[in-house]
Amino acid sequence: MRAFLPPTPFLAVDATVLDANIERVAAWADDRGLALRPHAKTHKSPEIAHRQEDAGVSGLTVATVGEAEVFAQSGFDDLFIAYPLWLDEERRLRVRRLAERATVRVGFDSLAAARGLVGIGVTGLVEIDSGHHRSGVVPADAGELAAVAASEGLDVVGVFTFPGHSYVPGGREAAAGQEAEALATAVASFRDAGLVARVVSGGSSPSLAATGAGLTESRPGVYVFNDAQQWELGACTPEQVALTCHATVVSHAGGRLVLDSGSKVLGADRPAWASGFGRLLDHPDARIVILSEHHAVADLFGEALPPLGSTVRVVPNHACNAVNLVDEYTVLEQGRLVDRWAVAARGMNA
Amino acid sequence: MRAFLPPTPFLAVDATVLDANIERVAAWADDRGLALRPHAKTHKSPEIAHRQEDAGVSGLTVATVGEAEVFAQSGFDDLFIAYPLWLDEERRLRVRRLAERATVRVGFDSLAAARGLVGIGVTGLVEIDSGHHRSGVVPADAGELAAVAASEGLDVVGVFTFPGHSYVPGGREAAAGQEAEALATAVASFRDAGLVARVVSGGSSPSLAATGAGLTESRPGVYVFNDAQQWELGACTPEQVALTCHATVVSHAGGRLVLDSGSKVLGADRPAWASGFGRLLDHPDARIVILSEHHAVADLFGEALPPLGSTVRVVPNHACNAVNLVDEYTVLEQGRLVDRWAVAARGMNA
Repeated sequence: MRAFLPPTPFLAVDATVLDANIERVAAWADDRGLALRPHAKTHKSPEIAHRQEDAGVSGLTVATVGEAEVFAQSGFDDLFIAYPLWLDEERRLRVRRLAERATVRVGFDSLAAARGLVGIGVTGLVEIDSGHHRSGVVPADAGELAAVAASEGLDVVGVFTFPGHSYVPGGREAAAGQEAEALATAVASFRDAGLVARVVSGGSSPSLAATGAGLTESRPGVYVFNDAQQWELGACTPEQVALTCHATVVSHAGGRLVLDSGSKVLGADRPAWASGFGRLLDHPDARIVILSEHHAVADLFGEALPPLGSTVRVVPNHACNAVNLVDEYTVLEQGRLVDRWAVAARGMNA
Repeated sequence: MRAFLPPTPFLAVDATVLDANIERVAAWADDRGLALRPHAKTHKSPEIAHRQEDAGVSGLTVATVGEAEVFAQSGFDDLFIAYPLWLDEERRLRVRRLAERATVRVGFDSLAAARGLVGIGVTGLVEIDSGHHRSGVVPADAGELAAVAASEGLDVVGVFTFPGHSYVPGGREAAAGQEAEALATAVASFRDAGLVARVVSGGSSPSLAATGAGLTESRPGVYVFNDAQQWELGACTPEQVALTCHATVVSHAGGRLVLDSGSKVLGADRPAWASGFGRLLDHPDARIVILSEHHAVADLFGEALPPLGSTVRVVPNHACNAVNLVDEYTVLEQGRLVDRWAVAARGMNA
């Protein structure tokens, strides 16, 4: 029986590359003596999380209660919701139920949010801002917030940060340095407040190799797949890209490739420093220069164009957002379909 | 019985505003003597398409075979796939089946693609490039392509274009002018080739008011909802925004609002000219200055911050991509939940 590929555009995972990425980072964490708690928001897939588990992880990181529920239902029993959750009544009930079947840690960056975490069986981690300036408290204030939260009944086990400012070319060393420094400041502020930060958690895929001292845990996400951003940041080689969107050449208008992989399957991410809206795995000099909902226009800059009707492999700029657009992965080995995996937590934003 | 709102972030449609938008544009098309064939890729919802039908449309526009199948199943029998489809064997079969239950038009911009449309019960429209430089042939070449396609057995009924270059501030008059001129050139080239372009189709939401002479049909999509792009382009007022993402304030870090509506529910669209990653409907001076997957950071520039735990209404930059991220709309009237509508064609990219 021949296994048919789905119609384009579809997201394909190269299982061989995926496994190599998972192994490599697991070995790296092991060498460094770091607990690895990969962020499952990237893949949203229990199958992939199980492969990460097999390679050795201390638990999973997720971004939302809905994601935590999906992975708990798949048997994962140690989950960190690395997000400053605001728990209304309904969400508080859901987290309490979750904590009955799994060890659950939740982030917070305000006393008001910490109060919502008391009495539902979870532990708390103070989020600090290490330079990304998104959420989190000033590092020196972490201990004080932790102490007040603890005095109100929350078991505060440590600190975490996301060095998202590693997402600029040449930025990863600086971001990793600031991450380590900010976490050290926060740990010291815990000590000053009479507390111990048992968990010191950081990490992002671009800054992984530069991770500084003092962390106990790392939470990279994208490394399982890699993407055009990681490629351009020098955080992976093209051979380490495990996720591509298979697209059909529908037009040669204007002497360029028009592909049926638009932003509704690739995602519209395009940081200012990126060289385009995505890349082609087999044409490294090409760039996606126009992206609309159902068209990706790739300039091959003089290279001969693949014929109309042929398939090319597009590397999305941001794997996490591409994945969130599809219901399943087409899993390939040596280019042959071997499985389909559900993107089980797709759309679980709440 | 109290109807509960879903947990944030969720996409809400204000049905009153929606209906007013639908009526206004239907009346505009009627005044202009234009057939209105709204693009259903924006809403992907049979419920909304039925409201458009009730207001008077000549049919629907869709972007993919999958979208066409969804709307055909919901009883819509006149569909234009305004896309240069490449029909492999499987997709050719699907389109043939579709054409058994609906009148189906398909776009093409090459003879090779036109050949794939012969013998499956569809008519063809030549796509021309009116300045957006995405897909489509040079306007003057439309007649020749149509004539060759017709000689090979395709019923070519006209020409179409998408003036996507209307999506820049101050660009809509110029884009609409170029659209009309390009379509006129294409119609003349049909005449020179001994053919008649019965359908002359264009239109985009930003350029609607500037639509030039010579068109027989307009295909706007976003006008049903509007979004931050349309607002900033001057194509709508904030009172005409029917789609918002309800988001919870989860943090006040850095003196800004951190909201739980990230790019996984808003979409990551951010054209260079946009003032941010989205706006707040009730705080017109605010801008979303950082957008990651589960965080939208809004700067209120000194305005008092809504409290932690409160809900704000975010206007996505690009409605079409936000909609494609959720499974259903929460339908409100006067702020009260009145219905839920499925985003039935979500993810139908193929």
